[in-house]
Amino acid sequence: MKTDEYLKSTIRSIPDFPKKGIVFRDITTLLKDPKALKQVVDRFYDEYKDKDISKVVSVESRGFIFGAALAYKLNAGFVPIRKKGKLPAETIIQEYELEYGTDAMEIHADAVQPGDRIVILDDLLATGGTIEAACKLVERLQGEIVGLSFLIELSFLNGRQRIGRHPIQSLITYDSE
Amino acid sequence: MKTDEYLKSTIRSIPDFPKKGIVFRDITTLLKDPKALKQVVDRFYDEYKDKDISKVVSVESRGFIFGAALAYKLNAGFVPIRKKGKLPAETIIQEYELEYGTDAMEIHADAVQPGDRIVILDDLLATGGTIEAACKLVERLQGEIVGLSFLIELSFLNGRQRIGRHPIQSLITYDSE
Repeated sequence: MKTDEYLKSTIRSIPDFPKKGIVFRDITTLLKDPKALKQVVDRFYDEYKDKDISKVVSVESRGFIFGAALAYKLNAGFVPIRKKGKLPAETIIQEYELEYGTDAMEIHADAVQPGDRIVILDDLLATGGTIEAACKLVERLQGEIVGLSFLIELSFLNGRQRIGRHPIQSLITYDSE
Repeated sequence: MKTDEYLKSTIRSIPDFPKKGIVFRDITTLLKDPKALKQVVDRFYDEYKDKDISKVVSVESRGFIFGAALAYKLNAGFVPIRKKGKLPAETIIQEYELEYGTDAMEIHADAVQPGDRIVILDDLLATGGTIEAACKLVERLQGEIVGLSFLIELSFLNGRQRIGRHPIQSLITYDSE
């Protein structure tokens, strides 16, 4: 999908954050712009409005920002995936790889019913490790993944290779750092 | 304001989480219910729709869930307050007290302009320490706080005493543990 140039112009690029050589794409400058925020949610909505979505699933914490707004607009429910130890009821857990070592995320075991039609939404598709773990959690609960949506895709990190069995929507693409 | 009994019925109460004697009010059962999620956002919206709000400010991470949805609906911008070290550009920082010790939260220094009309929104009003710190951050940037909104108020913790100079909206009240 073509990058949205207006949206891209509202992103702030910060060199060497969180460490040297990384360009951090700061979405807070998009979020505070009412026109950009509206456009993002509306584009996510347009992708799914006719697809009978029952729940939007997002990963803590930036994913929460767009996830609940989209769920509201779709008249769907919202399901958070959180870091280990944050969710209070019975959960299932999924490990995923970080640059060094592993981390784990959880979803409530009763958050997704078999057959639920699910959008998984996050702010950023980088290497795809986080979203791949989120997909596994939803699939273990027998949710049907209708699509994956991202505000930003760092295409040079090839995250699509890990999750390409699902339809992917991204609004802004960066081809290099 | 009167507690909304339907909304309250969708909250799951979990005894002894995160520690013995505390009843944790789990909002994930509300979030996954499309009717409840819609009702929450619509009630926040009704409170502010005629008040010319320019930005909705929320505290990481559960606050993000409703904050961006409300901002979208109001055609306002969304501003996240995050834990120390997460925001990449220039910030101002505010310490606040925890049960033992202190923690700190940050907002981007350019996130609020003088005169911005602000709603601060969080999922929970407990002792009020977090929201008081959020108010200080907004006031230091010369934002005008139009109101504070919460999904849940634990009224027996008297959080209103700390922030009562601002109008407060809460949708669900618990008078005791």
